[in-house]
Formats: sequence, structure tokens, C-alpha cells
Amino acid sequence: MEAAGEKVENHFFTRAEIATHKTREKRVWVTYKEGVYDITDFIDNHPGGKAKIMLAAGSAIDPFWRVYQQHLNSNLPQELLATMKVGVLDPSEKPTEVDMSDPYSHDPSRHPGLKFHNTKPCNAELPPALQMQNWVTPNELFFIRHHHPVPEINAAEYRLLIKGKGVKPICLSLADLRDRFPRTEVTATLQCGGNRRAGLNKVEKTSGIEWGTGAISTATWGGVLLRDVLLYSGLLSPEIAKEQGVEHICFTGQDGLMASIPMEKALGTFGDVLLAYEMNGEPLPREHGYPLRAVVPGHVGVRNVKWVTEIVASEEEATGPWQRGIAYKGFSPQVKAFDGVDVEAIHSMQEMPVQSVIVSPEPGESIDREEGTVTVSGWAWSGGGRGIVRVDVSGDNGKTWLPTEITHGGGQNMHQAWAWSFWEAEVPLALATAAADGSGKHAVHLCCRAIDSAYNVQPETPESIWNIRGLNNTSWDRVDIDVKGQR
Amino acid sequence: MEAAGEKVENHFFTRAEIATHKTREKRVWVTYKEGVYDITDFIDNHPGGKAKIMLAAGSAIDPFWRVYQQHLNSNLPQELLATMKVGVLDPSEKPTEVDMSDPYSHDPSRHPGLKFHNTKPCNAELPPALQMQNWVTPNELFFIRHHHPVPEINAAEYRLLIKGKGVKPICLSLADLRDRFPRTEVTATLQCGGNRRAGLNKVEKTSGIEWGTGAISTATWGGVLLRDVLLYSGLLSPEIAKEQGVEHICFTGQDGLMASIPMEKALGTFGDVLLAYEMNGEPLPREHGYPLRAVVPGHVGVRNVKWVTEIVASEEEATGPWQRGIAYKGFSPQVKAFDGVDVEAIHSMQEMPVQSVIVSPEPGESIDREEGTVTVSGWAWSGGGRGIVRVDVSGDNGKTWLPTEITHGGGQNMHQAWAWSFWEAEVPLALATAAADGSGKHAVHLCCRAIDSAYNVQPETPESIWNIRGLNNTSWDRVDIDVKGQR
Repeated sequence: MEAAGEKVENHFFTRAEIATHKTREKRVWVTYKEGVYDITDFIDNHPGGKAKIMLAAGSAIDPFWRVYQQHLNSNLPQELLATMKVGVLDPSEKPTEVDMSDPYSHDPSRHPGLKFHNTKPCNAELPPALQMQNWVTPNELFFIRHHHPVPEINAAEYRLLIKGKGVKPICLSLADLRDRFPRTEVTATLQCGGNRRAGLNKVEKTSGIEWGTGAISTATWGGVLLRDVLLYSGLLSPEIAKEQGVEHICFTGQDGLMASIPMEKALGTFGDVLLAYEMNGEPLPREHGYPLRAVVPGHVGVRNVKWVTEIVASEEEATGPWQRGIAYKGFSPQVKAFDGVDVEAIHSMQEMPVQSVIVSPEPGESIDREEGTVTVSGWAWSGGGRGIVRVDVSGDNGKTWLPTEITHGGGQNMHQAWAWSFWEAEVPLALATAAADGSGKHAVHLCCRAIDSAYNVQPETPESIWNIRGLNNTSWDRVDIDVKGQR
Repeated sequence: MEAAGEKVENHFFTRAEIATHKTREKRVWVTYKEGVYDITDFIDNHPGGKAKIMLAAGSAIDPFWRVYQQHLNSNLPQELLATMKVGVLDPSEKPTEVDMSDPYSHDPSRHPGLKFHNTKPCNAELPPALQMQNWVTPNELFFIRHHHPVPEINAAEYRLLIKGKGVKPICLSLADLRDRFPRTEVTATLQCGGNRRAGLNKVEKTSGIEWGTGAISTATWGGVLLRDVLLYSGLLSPEIAKEQGVEHICFTGQDGLMASIPMEKALGTFGDVLLAYEMNGEPLPREHGYPLRAVVPGHVGVRNVKWVTEIVASEEEATGPWQRGIAYKGFSPQVKAFDGVDVEAIHSMQEMPVQSVIVSPEPGESIDREEGTVTVSGWAWSGGGRGIVRVDVSGDNGKTWLPTEITHGGGQNMHQAWAWSFWEAEVPLALATAAADGSGKHAVHLCCRAIDSAYNVQPETPESIWNIRGLNNTSWDRVDIDVKGQR
């Protein structure tokens, strides 16, 4: 073994070479620290499942172990890994050169487990295999939806300017915010308005990032209530805001993004809008708005402005494309172009509609009929703090429904339910029907739908809600699986 | 003429006899004061439309003229009517005897234009012909949904008791309420949770009153904000309520009905919950809660407790069937009986989902192809103060959609839109398709759907949302009309 070990230590591999080992056919390699490992024969035995370990195929496993620390809490994973060693990273390989003139060159390094749609600006979603690993998403895995490079802000020099109608202008430092207002925590799910856009694109092409189901994540945010800060800064009361005609609270981020929320949300007693400086107990990461961001629970992601530097009380909505342009407006299905459309008259998204997704099984998964049932799990969430009262799951394309059990996120206040719920059900494989193509294959047609505390429901199909910007796809999520074996 | 007039004055008719004259075949008669009139030949010329004048067929036209005062503001209606006189009410007819031992014998007299489902207790809806006559429904036409006889309350002796967790008990007279708190007006639509139940019954029988589309009405309510009263009575602040564990505000009506609303709605800055003593500028009618009722804008009708005598701050929901029983709970479609169902665990309705209805044309109406288009109109509303951002109408059963114009109720605050919106559109008759039965008939299949400010949508069919209690039928409203004439 000593001799073999010496031999392995002399096998040098470049990252490019390792990246070609991503499939069982080509053998699946990963790196850990400086070592290179062939994990092909271990994949099926991975206690966390095949899908999760395959996220690291052809690259480093370190970022995953950092997030899922059970790998570091015992010696077993490293001992197992040692038996699979095939070599080490080529020490002569030069680090990737960074073009410092590229405005994106200062963006933070990112977790490879995310599914990247773009990097300039970065847009990355949480893949299904990681969506339900944690009810509160680890910071490194929280979905990313940027419109610009990530700003670099010196916290000591940072100031938040608050001004506008009825407000005596004031500048607050981070220390002011921390010291002068009570620290408040809110666990809130953020979802991009375009989540599940891919499903609408199957009907007819829309515009924007082709999100799957993962433009959604949950964190426990720490900070101060915007309401407390606004009252202090001179608006004094919702009543006076109403008298002064203040209808919108506008945020500007250091990156240039501008968005606003209704005055009622910002100043309402139970709106829970935060100016957050912490995310899951850590200082807010640069990626997610360091040193300060807005968290607007129950509202579409884009209103949760990151790197916020200015807050303005106004009679009008924020200016700019993210509020007044087409970006977050739900057009009628008949709108196929913007000629002659009065875009300003269309309501810009704020609260979101009720949503749910099947996370497991994945589409096309093959299950043995002898298993009897398939465990179906997923998440559900609604905007406006409307709690999930029920998730129904169907094994026959929506003809009949089965109840599900809420496994995480149950027990939230039904009127301030800011975080998602996880659900699970056993669906009988006996519901499988024969494929119409005469192939002899049998499939179970799974779909799910959630009902929120206002008894709002999800629409049956993406066709009926198709819209040119590909927003608000809350149609029943559908997953077909194959059933193997005799009837 | 004098002689003919004398002759007519000698023709006596009983109410029972008049009631047999309800159709063109039997001639349509109405009474006005003591006179009896044959209006058959006038029906098609009625400026307000055929459907509306036919509501009085076989009975008194006085209640309609009282509500639609244009009939009394000129001499023309009475002059026209005089030409149709056929006789007078039989003066020897005894008034209907009232059984004073019947607990319902003291119920107020009611407008005959309502569509009565029951009278003991009274349940009556606004017929389509009157739904859009007024954006604010006249008091006499406001839909009625009672569970008991209408109480008789002496206003001078009336006291409202407020007590419960964290509250120093207090008794308030009507004068206290009027004098100690600012008078506030809210225009709010109330809708019964079972509105449009008839549509679910077509799928499979449910239980409860078979409401059409008219268990909904709108009024401008005057009174004091519950929030103001609760703060005064000792809860002091929403923060203290949270600390004390107060989660529900429970109402008890003099009739015995008990219901509760979430603390957040009652105490929130923008919840606009009223203790109302006025309705459309008049003292609250006995029928609708005299001397005081709760008005909970955006929540299901039953939470708007009438004749309210007691308000209790509580950790728990109200007791009784209307809150904890099956009455206002949305069960899954698979629940066909209550054996083994944990009824307490099901969410009792509060906010309502987005809803819309086609009021005109009526189903089966026949329209000449030469008209080119049909004017389609209706109303839309959503719970929780979510404004209507759009109503779509389709002439081909939902395959394509046309925009509509909001004619009344537009411009409400999108987050405190408590009242309904009226909408209208011109739908081309060219969308008519031939009936599948080969009859040569052509029909336009109209349907409508509304989208609220959270971009919630209505479900396509009643099948997918069927529930044993017949609640929350918000499926696309569908109306088929016949198109006459050559293609």
C-alpha cells in the first residue's frame, strides 16, 4: 500500500482533466483539498443519495462538505475517500487569471452546487437535490439573482440616507442601526418573480432567465424593522404618512437597482419588513447585500433590495425598469408584443401568489412496482404571509387527490407565514397507467397544488397563465415517473 | 275615459289572484299603492330593461320604485302606469295573519326583489338583474344571510362588553362609541363563503344554501375602528397583545352567532375593521345588525358579526359551529364524509380568494349576429384588500382572452381594495361556434376570470375545487349565449 500510495502521489492532474470525469462511463472524479479521487463505485452507497454526490462530479467536493458538516464531524468520510485516491492536483497548474478591468472580476467566489444561468451578472438557482436538504437554506446555497456586479462597500464608511415626503432627511451608520433600534429576526422565503419560467417557455417562449424550480430560498434574517426606523426618521405615524400622501417606500441599492413597496407594507404593524445586516446568524454576505439589505417578507424577490443606501418616502412608485418597466409586470396572455400597451398602467408585482413544487422524485425517475408506493416530497409557499393550509398531491394527473403531511414549516402564524412549508406523501404506484404509445411502459402522473390561508389555489395549466415576461408560473407542478415490473 | 276609469275602479283583485299574472301568456300584472296594472305591453319598452321590471311581476312595484327613485322624480312613470290600470286591490282582503309564537314573526319586512332561499332564518340573494344597478348596493337589496331570527334590540339599553386576555373589561353604550372615537367610513363588499355554491352542486351535491352569484353586496359602512376601541379598552398595543398571547378577537351576536378574526386583522394599522352603526348614511337597519355590527373588510361574510354584544380577546378562536365546526372550512375534494376527519385542524375561512362573475348577458340569452358584438359585464373582487389588477373575458371558452374595462371601483388602493370592481367588454359574436349536436345552432361560450394584486388567479373548473361544504367556488364563471342569423 505504501508503494501504491507513493505512486498515486506522483499522478498529477489538471482541473480541466478532472472536469472530464463527470459520468460513470468516464469514471466520476472529485477533488478534496489537493487530492484527486475516483468515487464511481461509491456513488450508489452515498448515504445522502446519488443526486447530491453527483453535484460535485468533476470538481471539488470541499464546498459541499463545508455546507454539510457531518462530513467533517467524523473521520469516516476522509478514511473512505483515502481508499479512492487516484492522484493529486498538478502543482504546476497556474491559478485562473482574473481580468481586473472586468467589472465582474470582484464578484465573490460561489458555491459550485448552484445551477448557474449566468455569471455576469450572476444568476444561479438551488438545484432540486439541495432544495430540501435544509428548511433554512445555507448562505452559500441561497439562490442568486443579480442585475449588476456585486458592489464592494466599506462598512465603516457606509451610510443609509432616509429622506422624502414628510421625512426630515437623516443619515444612519451601521452602528446607528444596530444601537438605536431593537434587533429583530424574521425567517422569510424569497422567491424570484420568474421562478419556474422554464415551464411557461414550454408553452411559448417568454423572455428572461430560464429558471427551473430553484429561484427560491429561505433564511433567518437579523436586523431592524424598517417601520421602527421610519417612525424614528420623521414619518412618525402611518396616519401622517396617509395625510401627506406617502404611498410608496423606495429603495436604491449601491448597484443601481431601484424598487419600491407599498407604504402599508412598510409601516403596517405586522409587515415585518427588515433592514437586515445578518443572514443565518452571520454578517450579511457580500453576495446577498452586505452591509445592509431590505427583506420584504411575502413580496417578490426584486423588492428585497440588496446593498441598500437610500430610502425615500414618496407619492409615487420607484422609477426605473424594475418597478415601472416591463420586468415584473404580469401581462395578459394575449399580449405578444409591447406596441400600444400602456405599460405604466400594469400592476408591478408585490405580493406573490400561492406556489408549490414537487422536488422528489425527479421527472423520469424509474421505480419498481414492488415498492408499492413512491414517496413524493416538495415545498409550498404563498405571498403576503398567507400560510399554507393544505397541499394536495395526485398520482393520476389531478383526477383524484391525496392528502400530504407538512414536515417542516407547519405551525407558522397563518397571517404572517413568511417561510415555506415542506410536505410529503406516499402515492400508490397502482395509480400508474399505460403509456398511450403502446410501448408497454407504465407511468404515474404526479402533480401537486397548494391552498393558502385565503383559500387561493394554483391554476391547472401553464397555458392559461402564460405571459410574455414569464412571471408567476404557479401552475400545478407535474412530474411523470416510470413504473417498472409486472402489474 | 271617465266611464272606463270608473269601471276599472270597481274591479277588485286579491293578492293571490294578482300573483297568477306573472307571464306574458297569462298577462303580467303589478300593483302600485292600491292600483292593479297590466304592464304586459310595456315590458319591452321599459328603459331599465326587461329583466328588472319582471322582478315585480305578479306583485307590488312600490319597493322597486322606492329603491330606484328616478321613478318618483318625474310624473311620467305614474302617467304611463295610469294608462295600464285594470283594477284595484280588494279592500275586503284581510292582512296576512302573523303567528306571534313563531320566533321569526318579528323579522323585518323584506324587499321582494331579493331571491329568497329561506325565510326562517332568512337567506336571500341579489338577483343578477339588480347586482350592477348600483356599485353601492341599496340597503333594502343587500343580500341577507341569517342563522337565527332577527333580534330586537333597544338601542338605549344596548351595551357592548369588551373583555378577555389582557383587557380590563369595559361596557360601552352606543353614545360612548359615537362620542369617544372618531367616526370612520369604509366602503366594503361582503360575500358569503358559499356564494356560487350552485356551480359546485352541478359537479356533485354539497350541503348548504344553493346560492347563485348574488350572495354578495357592497355598502358604505359608518362607525368606529375596532382598533381604536381595543387600544382604548386596555390591550394598548399590538405588541402587548403578542406578548400576552392574544391571537384572536371573538365576537358574539345577540342572535347567538359566534365568530372570531385574527388579532393581526383587528389590530393592524390598515385592517379597517369597523364596529358599524351606519349603513349607506342611514342608521344600521335591524336586518343588518342594528344597533352595531362588525365589518371585517376582505374577510368572509360570517366574520362580520351582526348585533354584536360581546368582544373577547383570546388565545383561541371563537367556539361554536361557525368557527370550529364544518360550516366555513374548505375540505379537500377527496373528503366525502366527516368520519375520521380532524375538523378542528382544518383552517376556518377568513380572507377570501379572488372571484369574478358575468352578470350580463344571462345564460341562454339570444343575440342577433348582426349586432356584431355582445356587451359582457360583471363584477370582480378579492379578499384581504387585494385589488383587481385585471379581468379577462373569453368568447371561446378560455382559449383566447380579451381585455375588459373597469367601469366602477377602479382606482382603489391596491392593498386596501375592500370593494368590488365592475367591468365591461365587447366580445365579437364571430367567436360563436356551431353546437356539437348538429342542430345548426351557434353559441358563444363566454367565461371570465379576475387577477388580484398578488397575481392570484381563479381555477378553470369547479371540478378541481369541489368540496363537501360547497365553499369558495371561484372557478371561471361561464355563460353560453345563442347567436341567431346567418354566418
